[in-house]
Amino acid sequence: MAKVNDNYLKLPGSYLFSTVARKVREFQEANPDKQVIKLSIGDVTQPLAPAIIESLHKAVDEMGKAETFRGYAPDLGYEFLRKTIAEKDYKPKGCNVSADEIFISDGAKSDSANIQEIFSLDNKIAVGDPVYPVYVDSNVMAGRTGTYDKVKETWSDVIYMPCLAENNFVPEIPKEVPDLIYLCFPNNPTGATIKKAQLQEWVDYANKVGAVIIYDAAYEAYISEADVPHSIYECEGARTCAIELRSFSKNAGFTGVRLGFTVVPKDLMVDGVALHGLWARRHGTKYNGAPYIIQRAGEAVYSDAGQAQLREQVAYYMKNAAYIYNGLKEAGYSVSGGVNAPYVWLRTPGNMTSWEFFDYLLEKANVVGTPGSGFGPSGEHYFRVNAFGSYENTVEAIRRIKAL
Amino acid sequence: MAKVNDNYLKLPGSYLFSTVARKVREFQEANPDKQVIKLSIGDVTQPLAPAIIESLHKAVDEMGKAETFRGYAPDLGYEFLRKTIAEKDYKPKGCNVSADEIFISDGAKSDSANIQEIFSLDNKIAVGDPVYPVYVDSNVMAGRTGTYDKVKETWSDVIYMPCLAENNFVPEIPKEVPDLIYLCFPNNPTGATIKKAQLQEWVDYANKVGAVIIYDAAYEAYISEADVPHSIYECEGARTCAIELRSFSKNAGFTGVRLGFTVVPKDLMVDGVALHGLWARRHGTKYNGAPYIIQRAGEAVYSDAGQAQLREQVAYYMKNAAYIYNGLKEAGYSVSGGVNAPYVWLRTPGNMTSWEFFDYLLEKANVVGTPGSGFGPSGEHYFRVNAFGSYENTVEAIRRIKAL
Repeated sequence: MAKVNDNYLKLPGSYLFSTVARKVREFQEANPDKQVIKLSIGDVTQPLAPAIIESLHKAVDEMGKAETFRGYAPDLGYEFLRKTIAEKDYKPKGCNVSADEIFISDGAKSDSANIQEIFSLDNKIAVGDPVYPVYVDSNVMAGRTGTYDKVKETWSDVIYMPCLAENNFVPEIPKEVPDLIYLCFPNNPTGATIKKAQLQEWVDYANKVGAVIIYDAAYEAYISEADVPHSIYECEGARTCAIELRSFSKNAGFTGVRLGFTVVPKDLMVDGVALHGLWARRHGTKYNGAPYIIQRAGEAVYSDAGQAQLREQVAYYMKNAAYIYNGLKEAGYSVSGGVNAPYVWLRTPGNMTSWEFFDYLLEKANVVGTPGSGFGPSGEHYFRVNAFGSYENTVEAIRRIKAL
Repeated sequence: MAKVNDNYLKLPGSYLFSTVARKVREFQEANPDKQVIKLSIGDVTQPLAPAIIESLHKAVDEMGKAETFRGYAPDLGYEFLRKTIAEKDYKPKGCNVSADEIFISDGAKSDSANIQEIFSLDNKIAVGDPVYPVYVDSNVMAGRTGTYDKVKETWSDVIYMPCLAENNFVPEIPKEVPDLIYLCFPNNPTGATIKKAQLQEWVDYANKVGAVIIYDAAYEAYISEADVPHSIYECEGARTCAIELRSFSKNAGFTGVRLGFTVVPKDLMVDGVALHGLWARRHGTKYNGAPYIIQRAGEAVYSDAGQAQLREQVAYYMKNAAYIYNGLKEAGYSVSGGVNAPYVWLRTPGNMTSWEFFDYLLEKANVVGTPGSGFGPSGEHYFRVNAFGSYENTVEAIRRIKAL
């Protein structure tokens, strides 16, 4: 008799953004005349840059001719893309990352959910609180998180590292020693960043205690300040303790195109086993590569034309971020983030819970953000607003919030 | 201190097709003048059909304009594709499958590897022997298969159902009752098929013992005979016991495009839990959808022009299959498959092992096939040749084999 994986049954509620989407859909159905502005899920709105469109058309044409048609991709991804990433993303930052340490995938969401699979179920994870829900939920599904406390909204076997105004939303090294440490900078959801010296402390700590850091750098393109690291491999010793996750979703608008990559350095040994080999085995067995045409689009991100166009695109969103930050501040909110990240993190007014503020904003201003509590208990009384809307919608959203 | 998932360390050797690729690469490096013909991994060679190319270009253009740009896709896939599949694949076959029971993915390889995740680790799997390696390997990685016997090349907690000439390569219901049953028809690797009445017996059995059938129908487009089912939902009662995996790789040449889908009927309950909800939760949490442009390409597969062009493409490969089948027979080999499937399964001559025959064919004829033993112990002394090459290469490969 078949049985289900009952870890799934422990998950409280549905995936955060599914709940947000449902609430918005219900509101729209009840209020078809209202113009809802969505600054919630971190989804971009600007079209793909011309250099990317051009490369997609070219690759599509190749797929239409027998001489240039491509079937299954190499397990790790096409060499042309892996070499380009090593050359253009890592070398200029002084990071020693080679092409064959880069695994191309369909995005950082899949990778951040799947990476836990190569580790023992006995390993204990530490996460920032608030945190991108996929890190925790994927570990819940695997059975690594113990039992759920409905009142505290925490898992018994997860080490939570509160990220609050008091610590500038940067977690402190926890008292209990974790085995796997999830770090995300620039941070989703808080928009906070970490200085290179602070990140070096984490690397030193992980090497000392034998922990592995899973470093999510999906938002690195939004870094505007000089002493904020773009990659964990800017830190000394990171090659022996850190895996890095990267995305094309935010730097190039690929949320609906699906492309990302994960770096597993060959020096990264756990129990005397190279994690590189394990991840390669997972990739080869459970995945069949990102589409050829999309890997070509990824390559175009690094062309001179692509780089110039995408700098403009990132600047466009960062102009929104500044507008949101300043607008909310003027409206009397306590805000952070938005300088090295496309997210502004605000403290809800009065004693409102995050979801109360979500409903209030949806109903009164027809603006959708994301409740901070959906990212973890320390996110309660906070709220995330993203900068990925159009400039016009962003201006209008702030106008409506100010008018409340 | 981090620890690895030691289930990975139990896996013998590397993924089958990685080993084949390495051997071929080494042979080519040592013999750069030889023209190697690859009829090994089931990878298509014909370019994408014009209707698909056209829809890809159109969707790429949409992604380049703000008004038509698409970001994150809906969790289950776009409605336009799911509706089309329900309407064009299932309704004409009399199968009761609705659009919201169809989950769009990046291919049947990922789905067939991931589906085990929603089941308990206590569940015991039954697989055909030989079998597509992903079913077993993904269960090994999860820790569901016990220990590996290096001599027998079997796992202690897997129920093997031998598929041999004696049973026309169709497994018999096993003595020990399994919880999860993987069936694949038309079969990879043997090319065998199952009649509707035989499949009905499996459905009745699964409903009786409370097992779930994971039915891989990736090759259904190659069915040429009338009493062979295209979908397990042609059988009565399948909605309460079967999940079906489908692919665009073989019917439309999407091996490098990446698109597939899984059907989880809403009536399929295990332990009183609807598997539909569990798979939806996995999809929403650990995956972010197939690219918009590729879902549009999937839709074009079902257009009148797409259907006409793809019928021709399938016929092209089936002409190869017949050529291989007849050619090998003329050369004195014992062969099967090739009628409702793009695979021909041959018995190796003399007492050669599958890998000996692989090496022999590579060295003497410069033709690459796949060793049957790579698919399971009962595949020993068998060898898979696929029909996915060009007609010219197929003819040349058979000429060389005949000349041995």
